[in-house]
Amino acid sequence: MIKVGIVGGTGYTGVELLRLLAKHPQAEVNVITSRAEAGIPVSDLYPNLRGHVDLAFTEPDVELLGKCDVVFFATPHGVAQNLMPALLATGTRVIDLSADFRIRDTDLWAHWYDQTHGCPELVSEAVYGLPELNREAIKSARLVACPGCYPTAAQLALMPLLHNALVDPEHLIINAASGATGAGRQAKVGMLLTEISDSFKAYGASGHRHLPEIEQALRDMQPADSAKAQVTFIPHLLPMVRGIHATCYARALAPETLPDLQALFEQHYADEPFVDVMPAGSHPETRSVKGSNVCRISVCQPQGRDTIVVLSVIDNLTRGASGQAVQNMNIMFGLDETAGLDVVALLP
Amino acid sequence: MIKVGIVGGTGYTGVELLRLLAKHPQAEVNVITSRAEAGIPVSDLYPNLRGHVDLAFTEPDVELLGKCDVVFFATPHGVAQNLMPALLATGTRVIDLSADFRIRDTDLWAHWYDQTHGCPELVSEAVYGLPELNREAIKSARLVACPGCYPTAAQLALMPLLHNALVDPEHLIINAASGATGAGRQAKVGMLLTEISDSFKAYGASGHRHLPEIEQALRDMQPADSAKAQVTFIPHLLPMVRGIHATCYARALAPETLPDLQALFEQHYADEPFVDVMPAGSHPETRSVKGSNVCRISVCQPQGRDTIVVLSVIDNLTRGASGQAVQNMNIMFGLDETAGLDVVALLP
Amino acid sequence: MIKVGIVGGTGYTGVELLRLLAKHPQAEVNVITSRAEAGIPVSDLYPNLRGHVDLAFTEPDVELLGKCDVVFFATPHGVAQNLMPALLATGTRVIDLSADFRIRDTDLWAHWYDQTHGCPELVSEAVYGLPELNREAIKSARLVACPGCYPTAAQLALMPLLHNALVDPEHLIINAASGATGAGRQAKVGMLLTEISDSFKAYGASGHRHLPEIEQALRDMQPADSAKAQVTFIPHLLPMVRGIHATCYARALAPETLPDLQALFEQHYADEPFVDVMPAGSHPETRSVKGSNVCRISVCQPQGRDTIVVLSVIDNLTRGASGQAVQNMNIMFGLDETAGLDVVALLP
Amino acid sequence: MIKVGIVGGTGYTGVELLRLLAKHPQAEVNVITSRAEAGIPVSDLYPNLRGHVDLAFTEPDVELLGKCDVVFFATPHGVAQNLMPALLATGTRVIDLSADFRIRDTDLWAHWYDQTHGCPELVSEAVYGLPELNREAIKSARLVACPGCYPTAAQLALMPLLHNALVDPEHLIINAASGATGAGRQAKVGMLLTEISDSFKAYGASGHRHLPEIEQALRDMQPADSAKAQVTFIPHLLPMVRGIHATCYARALAPETLPDLQALFEQHYADEPFVDVMPAGSHPETRSVKGSNVCRISVCQPQGRDTIVVLSVIDNLTRGASGQAVQNMNIMFGLDETAGLDVVALLP
Repeated sequence: MIKVGIVGGTGYTGVELLRLLAKHPQAEVNVITSRAEAGIPVSDLYPNLRGHVDLAFTEPDVELLGKCDVVFFATPHGVAQNLMPALLATGTRVIDLSADFRIRDTDLWAHWYDQTHGCPELVSEAVYGLPELNREAIKSARLVACPGCYPTAAQLALMPLLHNALVDPEHLIINAASGATGAGRQAKVGMLLTEISDSFKAYGASGHRHLPEIEQALRDMQPADSAKAQVTFIPHLLPMVRGIHATCYARALAPETLPDLQALFEQHYADEPFVDVMPAGSHPETRSVKGSNVCRISVCQPQGRDTIVVLSVIDNLTRGASGQAVQNMNIMFGLDETAGLDVVALLP
Repeated sequence: MIKVGIVGGTGYTGVELLRLLAKHPQAEVNVITSRAEAGIPVSDLYPNLRGHVDLAFTEPDVELLGKCDVVFFATPHGVAQNLMPALLATGTRVIDLSADFRIRDTDLWAHWYDQTHGCPELVSEAVYGLPELNREAIKSARLVACPGCYPTAAQLALMPLLHNALVDPEHLIINAASGATGAGRQAKVGMLLTEISDSFKAYGASGHRHLPEIEQALRDMQPADSAKAQVTFIPHLLPMVRGIHATCYARALAPETLPDLQALFEQHYADEPFVDVMPAGSHPETRSVKGSNVCRISVCQPQGRDTIVVLSVIDNLTRGASGQAVQNMNIMFGLDETAGLDVVALLP
Repeated sequence: MIKVGIVGGTGYTGVELLRLLAKHPQAEVNVITSRAEAGIPVSDLYPNLRGHVDLAFTEPDVELLGKCDVVFFATPHGVAQNLMPALLATGTRVIDLSADFRIRDTDLWAHWYDQTHGCPELVSEAVYGLPELNREAIKSARLVACPGCYPTAAQLALMPLLHNALVDPEHLIINAASGATGAGRQAKVGMLLTEISDSFKAYGASGHRHLPEIEQALRDMQPADSAKAQVTFIPHLLPMVRGIHATCYARALAPETLPDLQALFEQHYADEPFVDVMPAGSHPETRSVKGSNVCRISVCQPQGRDTIVVLSVIDNLTRGASGQAVQNMNIMFGLDETAGLDVVALLP
Repeated sequence: MIKVGIVGGTGYTGVELLRLLAKHPQAEVNVITSRAEAGIPVSDLYPNLRGHVDLAFTEPDVELLGKCDVVFFATPHGVAQNLMPALLATGTRVIDLSADFRIRDTDLWAHWYDQTHGCPELVSEAVYGLPELNREAIKSARLVACPGCYPTAAQLALMPLLHNALVDPEHLIINAASGATGAGRQAKVGMLLTEISDSFKAYGASGHRHLPEIEQALRDMQPADSAKAQVTFIPHLLPMVRGIHATCYARALAPETLPDLQALFEQHYADEPFVDVMPAGSHPETRSVKGSNVCRISVCQPQGRDTIVVLSVIDNLTRGASGQAVQNMNIMFGLDETAGLDVVALLP
């Protein structure tokens, strides 16, 4: 059994990790830390874990964490970078669900996260944990930076188009919407049920931190001679708990010679266990992936015009965070990539 | 008092008309028809009307309706066109909330609505009831075709840009989302709470009936020498009752010489009682217009790139249907345009 | 015009007062205070008020408030009691929406609210503002203590039974459920959409602060020789914004000689503008009173057994707080009791 | 592997059976029937099953079903009774999720279900499938009648009290609330999101079909000399998808000598894998059992008065239907009772 540690387990990505790992056939959680809740049984905070998880939160402790084979960071940005050097020095491998090591340009990171990066020397070593893009590098990585939720949904939607240089990369539009768990479990007036239920709005229209991350990975997908991907990204807040929906718009570079997009997408993801290209004409629903690690995608070309539309859905806590983290763990340790993740989404 | 008749009052636009007209200072509903519910008190179907509306549904009857000063059609498409010649012949004026008279090209109408138009001779007379576009023509119209809900939100969002020819009109993108009342009150499995609550999806991606209507009015807003507006329109279904949110994307034709967009929008709508241009940086919420006739709009230019984003919200049943219909009635009868519509949105 | 002041206008009862008073024909809000938001326009916090309310929040100031004809307290408990003596001394009349003056026994108050009462000398003067119970006393009151939301729904449901001494008063059961606005607008993890959406639970089962208030008013309704009303009260939290539903159970004292309950209820409330006894067999829905001051009630006797069930619904922010407060103002100032409150509930 | 057939697999209990059985280590679904959807792949109807279930619906066929080891009926009432004699004659065992064989008194059944029972001769053989009550009889049963959703939640809540004759059995009150999946997947206006979202109401107050079923099983729990259990049962409709919450009220027969209720409940359910007695003072949330087979219960005695309150939650589709059906299958076939059901509830 792989020994697992979790840093910062009180948030939603923490409890989602526990839900998935509690039934993982080859891993078990040995340590889960939280400064604020140290000493409290995990199942006091999350009653769904009663009878499944017997752990209590402990103070973060590098020595204890270092005894684990792998440590997940389910912390806000700015935490992982401070513990990372000491932790990696123990020989444990790390999967960071936060934004700390996702962006290779530390100046860009500093600009968007409004603080100097605390551990720039390890940034270049970190592997961006989108398996469909970086599976080989993930296998041997010491430090995997798990993609954000919006980036995961958007990057998988656009990958076949950019990889094949079929669309104008400089005017991509990603119109995305997220369930409220995307904002975490902090006490904020703006996230009360009374403020956001039965309503809908955009937010961060002038600039969201996931933008530079999205663009970086999209550029990694492009052929060397393409113009660099540029994105207009508008996120929206859905009056619901889980789920991300991305509606992506891209203009065909050569509409007359465009290949069959349905076939292109199906082929591109033919061997991927966690990407489901739906039949032509489908509209993926977020509920079809609730609690599952699958990303469902469909592609169309409305009115046969030159704008291509790709729809994609994920569960922001599973494929958009903790499920993808477990998928990365499976890859890093040579396990079946679907171990612990072979779950049917909860529908209805 | 203006005598009002309503045809097809059992749906959501019918009950919304009743809610607004019950408190209108210069109008009163005399007749409300429904074949299926004839004889039933309106308040049996809609208990919120108990104590406010004493009418019962009656069989549709042109003679009775003809005694009204104005008749609203709150029917599915295909109904109004059949009664229209006889009804207009009585001298009554008509406000049609359905799609029957919105599109001037009856072949285009037939294509999208999958039936031959039953009254093509009156189509050219009908005035498209978007007050901000056609106020003068509405004043004297015998027949007003009220805009659809998505078109209202999208057209008001894009009007200042197209009117001033500031953006590429051939690649407009309208990404919109609607509460479930947009689908009416028919018993359909796909609209059960159990199917659409706590979930989100696109629909009609390959073509929605509001597309030709949107494009027609956008073209009416353009200077004569502009290339004709063309739209990629993707509607989505929100897990909530009321509200439409449109996120519109347009590429600036001359980014370097673009005027101050905030000022442009504020000026364009300065005299409009039912358009609220919000301060720069705002994200309008659908709940801020719940039950109100106002459309709230904000505009921005993310990262200073050449893609302009306009956000707009309306209540699909009020500004997107019955409220706008009452606004048109006020204009047609020379009343204060806000009569009966001076309502504060219900928030929270 | 009656000059109105509002203390503590940033919460949900504050914005609901503003929504109602903005359209009141005989009252206008002159002052609205908030220590935290002083200087901020009200409509910045609540965009639904844009175009309807031009006020900005000011620091609380007894002199300024004293120039108003009436002051509403929309504050948490513990605030009104401190300002009350000075404020009443200015001659202004006060309507307190908080719990400070609802309970006549200040020891009981201190027990449930966990603090000593700061103004016991005025408690006996305060009139409990349930118009159906205390209309005469309200007319001349200087200080009206508005009922809580649960108490309003439960007391109106049980009043005809207790007034006529038809049921065992010592084993009343009130099973009630509230929308999340009942908890106010504080930033609490437990009220995040992500914690309470798509879920349901009881809370405060071992004792809720509304219990002593409920029992006090129920006892006021009883004939002098009845055993004192005792209630088991279990509140529940609904995954929605507005609305309270009370399901009340009472055992008939003399099942064989029970009068016709439907007739009894209809008669009891025949002259009440804001109580709607629905037809036999009805199940009142909370949405049928959304934004309205009406309480809808139905009564039944399942299986003809000796347990009577009364169902009642109110909007917790309107009839359960700010609407009832305006109703009390209308009574105090000799206005039509429905002034400013003649609103159709927003349905759907 | 146990060969499983499912009759009527298009409803929510059908898809829930498929979700659970798809991952059951010792059972596999061989046949799933639906007259309306014959020939259609199951995953076309329920996209969450894509990649997990390859079956298509077939016409119901006794011969084919007879080759299964066990057949589940996930049909509306009235269907199972007609196929039952022929099906049992093939030697297969049957687990009926419908109401057909739950009530032993066929006259009572006929009264509540408004039709004559089509197979009275098998009613007495059927075992009521509440494992905590009838585990031994289930082991060898040919025909198990799975309890309804409300009955499951209510019976588990009241069992320790009735079994020990601690409360007045003739005046039990069960105030329960259900998510909308309890009403199935039929196209009904009354179950549209637009009709029931953001609202709450009671229904069936004058009599619900689960009442006789609840009373029958409660009586089975009582000592022989107790007065027969009688229940006032008021169900309510929650604006959410899954979950049942029962709030049960019972009056202590001898308040002074009442044992420690917390200890009593914990002891009563000490060996039950799917009943979780929560710590004193808990309020079970429906979300804590979403997708899980567990029933969580808490008990209290508000204000130390003689009314005992028991709160219980289940997922109506899992423990209230398909999960309990699988639990019964496990018992019937001598498997580990938790096989295929060892799932962590999806929270948040």
